[in-house]
Formats: sequence, structure tokens, C-alpha cells
Amino acid sequence: MFEATVRANVLKEFAGVISTLTDEAKFIVNPKGVTVNAVDPAHVAMVDLTLNAKAFEKYSASDMEMGVDIEKLGEVLRLAKGDDQIFLKFDEEKNKLIVQVENITRRMSLVDTAGMSEPKIPNLNLPVKVVAKTAELERGIRASEAVSDHVALIASPEGFELVSEGEMDSVSLKLPKKLLVELNCKERAKSLFSLDYFSKMIKAVITSENVVMNLGTDYPVKMEFDIAKGNGHATYLLAPRIESE
Amino acid sequence: MFEATVRANVLKEFAGVISTLTDEAKFIVNPKGVTVNAVDPAHVAMVDLTLNAKAFEKYSASDMEMGVDIEKLGEVLRLAKGDDQIFLKFDEEKNKLIVQVENITRRMSLVDTAGMSEPKIPNLNLPVKVVAKTAELERGIRASEAVSDHVALIASPEGFELVSEGEMDSVSLKLPKKLLVELNCKERAKSLFSLDYFSKMIKAVITSENVVMNLGTDYPVKMEFDIAKGNGHATYLLAPRIESE
Amino acid sequence: MFEATVRANVLKEFAGVISTLTDEAKFIVNPKGVTVNAVDPAHVAMVDLTLNAKAFEKYSASDMEMGVDIEKLGEVLRLAKGDDQIFLKFDEEKNKLIVQVENITRRMSLVDTAGMSEPKIPNLNLPVKVVAKTAELERGIRASEAVSDHVALIASPEGFELVSEGEMDSVSLKLPKKLLVELNCKERAKSLFSLDYFSKMIKAVITSENVVMNLGTDYPVKMEFDIAKGNGHATYLLAPRIESE
Repeated sequence: MFEATVRANVLKEFAGVISTLTDEAKFIVNPKGVTVNAVDPAHVAMVDLTLNAKAFEKYSASDMEMGVDIEKLGEVLRLAKGDDQIFLKFDEEKNKLIVQVENITRRMSLVDTAGMSEPKIPNLNLPVKVVAKTAELERGIRASEAVSDHVALIASPEGFELVSEGEMDSVSLKLPKKLLVELNCKERAKSLFSLDYFSKMIKAVITSENVVMNLGTDYPVKMEFDIAKGNGHATYLLAPRIESE
Repeated sequence: MFEATVRANVLKEFAGVISTLTDEAKFIVNPKGVTVNAVDPAHVAMVDLTLNAKAFEKYSASDMEMGVDIEKLGEVLRLAKGDDQIFLKFDEEKNKLIVQVENITRRMSLVDTAGMSEPKIPNLNLPVKVVAKTAELERGIRASEAVSDHVALIASPEGFELVSEGEMDSVSLKLPKKLLVELNCKERAKSLFSLDYFSKMIKAVITSENVVMNLGTDYPVKMEFDIAKGNGHATYLLAPRIESE
Repeated sequence: MFEATVRANVLKEFAGVISTLTDEAKFIVNPKGVTVNAVDPAHVAMVDLTLNAKAFEKYSASDMEMGVDIEKLGEVLRLAKGDDQIFLKFDEEKNKLIVQVENITRRMSLVDTAGMSEPKIPNLNLPVKVVAKTAELERGIRASEAVSDHVALIASPEGFELVSEGEMDSVSLKLPKKLLVELNCKERAKSLFSLDYFSKMIKAVITSENVVMNLGTDYPVKMEFDIAKGNGHATYLLAPRIESE
């Protein structure tokens, strides 16, 4: 059983995080909220995403799973203004998700979840923690996109740096310690990532002013931020690229 | 003879209605105003459109006809702001339409009207009348476009419904009687239409808050609305699609 | 040596003028400012552009030259808001231009200037001078683009006219003397130009309310306007097209 009402903005933020990695996802529903654990088709990144029951205006659910086509969900959400109430209901008999925006009802076929994995983000020992402003990271990414398709995240006791090296040009975003919200770094750490993935992840941060990054050297980056004004949480894990030098 | 001045917004609305069905149209001009009777190339829909002399700031005309390229007219109108005055004059000698927006003059070649029909909307006995808010219909159409290329218009004594059934998903817009401006329906009526045509027609309603729909079962829909704040009127007739069930 | 700070809007205007004609340009730097003399690849038009030291917030330079990729410069400028300070520095050792916007640094490879000419705008005896409002010219150009790919500039003692003749339609923008800022014309003069070039040039006028045009009959047009609120100046020369009548 699943029946809930939620503001359009909250559901857009939730769906936006998932859509960075996959078009279809298994919604794990229980009385406490909705969770999605997903991995991208190339197995480069994964996400652990939770939207608490408190993020909904009304929420009533028992343990169940639904395979949701995220693109279709997005189509319905585009009909709604940010503050519109979205009514969601699982139609068990017909195996459909009913989505209502004002007087409009869309009955969405669900996707088979049989083949969908439930990836768990592993416990990694990442020695560095950087908390940076989302807006700063976004600007660094936009600058990087012009010169390269990968980006290095570099932390040192003095600050954090995002560096993108192209064949001709290079871009760097330097955030000294005083421009960071938090920096916990004893030794220099550097890892290289696909700019495309990193960019999509940072752009999925809508309401959280800050992003927490856990880093190592040639290790994955773990990124965390709140959604739904603290009534939900997202954790991304992105695998490093091996430097070909 | 034809010489007139009109606000850009009024002419944009008039041209917008025509452009839903055809690129070229015969303007039937007389001292009372300008009328266009047009049919689309596939003969699925027709329009009867009138802009009264009162809709113009200045208007002076004798009986005549002009074949107008609606796309070209749109190009000139895009140069104007909504409140700009457009001066129109038929140059009989050169068979051109002179269109002036401020200091800019465009001399437009006219189109041969010899092959253009003057379709009259037939008198049909459509038992149901629904008057709905344009904005509601627009939202229903946008939702439908995601799931199907046709739409059913359904009326009952309880209300009006717009239903679009795709292979996987369905969308419905339900407007109970209290959300309608007017409902005159003794028995349930349902007809199926091309969503593309219906959508273009509803989107051509710019200044009229409401749309009048006359319906039957497996019959055409007749839609009517005012243009130019009541100084003009549009009537669309759209043929039904046969349900393949 | 070259090290300067400048508001993003000023540098955007400067780069915008150059980009109408070429993707790469030689920046001639000296203590008084930066000059670019460029010609387009088809040798139809040239520009003489200067940005005075006064247009910069800080400016310090000795005589030197830099080959700049204008598109790359534009990429960095798009990261900045209009009032952001851009820091520019020539890295002599690595032959790069360092561009800083807030915490972002882009190191741009420079372009070889060996093959770049330094065209000087010739002294032409153009008998007519017209000073027109930029906004009026822009509207005339937009109207012309719908009918033709060339435009005639016509001056007479009564006023200035921009005429575009297509196969079917024609467009004219008429500016009688009283709508011009200045008109100095004893005899009628008319020259025909590529609309594409003329359009790009007029659209590059951002902060100058007026454009000075010097004209003759079947002669180039020389256009002049200020950039950076008077702390810089642009002169375009555009060759005429020969009328094929």
C-alpha cells in the first residue's frame, strides 16, 4: 500500500537526483519513507537516496516496491507549479502508479524490478572531508566543461581545488580554507573523475547550499547533501578515473 | 479597397487562429470586417473566423479578396510590440499588401486565391454544450501529449472529461460540473479526436478565458471563442477519429 | 608585460565586436590600451578597435602582441556576471593568457600571430554622414532578414533609408531627417551590402545609443561607435556588393 501527497518541488528534487544515473528505478517504500538505491548502466556511480515520510504532506505506506520510469514521472511533474500538491497512489490491482496534479490524473505503468540491483554504497576509508558551497562547485564545473572531459579533485590542508586539464588550456577553481564550510585534511589527496558524472551530480543539488565530499588519492569520491530541506538525504559514490600519464 | 490600422496583438491573434490550419488564406474583406473560411490540407478541420471593423483602430474597405501568406504576415508582426499600431493597405496596382510597423514598410506579394475553397461550416445537430476554462483545457492537453496522439472528449450530466489512452499509460482531465462555466448534457456523449489538431486549436485561444464546445457521440466537435476582446469570433470544426477497437 | 583588471561587461563588448569578423585576433598591447585590427576570412570587412587603459579598473602593460582565441575568451566571460572583475595576465614564460573570474583561473594557449595581417582602414572620401539610433537600425535589419540577403543603404538630403528587395517582397526602413541624430548629405548616395555582415556589425553595438555611418554610391560604408562608455572606439569598414542589375 502506498498513498501520499507531496509538493511538486520536493518530488522534482527527488526525481532529479535519480535521473542523473538512471531512467528507471526501484522505489523501496516503507512506513518511514521512500528509498532508492541505484547504479548507472556503466557501473561508474551509485546513489543512495531517501525521502522521509516527513517530506510529504500526507503519507501512508506499508512495505512494498515499485519500478518507476523516472522520465514519465518528470513529464507529469512538468505540469505542476512548484507549490502544487501531487497525489500519488499505487494501484495494486492494475500494477500502476496513479499521479494526480489538480484535475489531471496520469496512470503510469510500472517497470519490472526483477532485474534491478539494490547496490549498497560500500564503507570506504576516505581520509579527507571537504564541505563546499554548491554554487562555487557549479561555477568550477561550467568553466571546466570548456577544456576537458575529466576533472581532478584535490584537497590539501590549505584548501580544495578542482582542476581540469585540456590539451591546450587548463581551468582551476581554488577554494582556500576560508572559503570552505569545513576542511578536514591532513595530507594532500587527489583523484580524477569523469566531468560528465561529477557535473550531473552537482547540478542535482537543488535546495542544499553545501555539499559534503569525502576524498582520497585515486579513490572514489563520496558526496552527500540534503534534499527536501533536510527531510531527505542523498549520497553519491563516483569511481575514479585512472590517470593515463 | 482596403486600408486599416490595428493593434499588433489583435492581428497576431487573428493570424494565429488561421495558422493552426493553413499557411495561406483568402481574406474576404468588406465594410463590416475581414472574414477567413479555411480548411486544413488534410480536410480534417475547418475554421470560420471574423474580425469586425470595430476591432481596428481605423478601417475603410470595399468588397474584395486577398490571398495572404500567413507566415510572412507573422514575420512582420514579430517586429512589433503588442500595442504597436500596424498599418495595412492593399496596393491594387501591384497586387501587394503593404504592412507598416512604425518606420518599417513591408510590401508583401499576395497569393493566388483561384484554387482556394471557401468552406462553410455545416449545420450539425450536436446535442451537448460544454463551456470550459481555456487554461484547464491547455493543461489537459499538455498532459495528454506525453501518452498518446489522440484524445477523447467525453461529456455526461455530471461533467466533462478529456481522456488520452496510450499503450502503457493514460491521462485524464476531469472537470466536474462545478468547475465548468456551463454544461448542457442530457446523455453521455463521447468522440475521439487527433490530439495534434485539438491541441493547436486550444493553443490558438489567446484572449478568450472560455471555450464553447459542442459535442456528440462519434461526431465532430465545434469549438467557439471570441477574439479581439469580443470584436471578433472564431469557430473551429474538427472531424472525429474512428476508434479502432 | 600585460596585467589588467576589467569589468566583465566591458571585455564582453570588446570581444563581441571582434567576433563579428574573426575567431582569432592579434591583440596589440601598449601602455595606452589594447588595439585590434582585423579582417574577416573573405576580406569583405575590417575592424579597427581600441579599448583605452581608462576602460580597465587596473592596467599595466608594455608594448607586446598576443594572439587570442576569441571563442575561448567568450567561454570564460560567460562564467562572469556583468559587474564581475576579470583579471588578465600574460604568462610570458608559457606563452599563455591567464584569465581569472573570482576563484576560477583559466590558462589559455595563445594563437600564433605570424600569419595575421594588421589591416589598416584606408582613408576614403565618403561624401555622406548619417548618425542613426542603433535600435532603429536593428529593427530594420530584423525586418530585412525575412526577405533578402542584402540591404541597400540610401541617403538623401531628406533622410536615410534601408531597403531590402527580395524576389517577392521588399522591406524598407525610412528615417526622415527629424528621426536622425545627424544628417550631412548634399546628393543622394546608395550602396548595396551583404545583410549578414551589416547585421552582425549593428548587433555588436551594445552600449552606444548611436551609430555613425559614412556612405557614398557603390562605395564601402564606414561605421563608427563607442564602446566601454566612451573609453574605447570601434570602426568597421564593409565593402559594397555589386548590384547584378
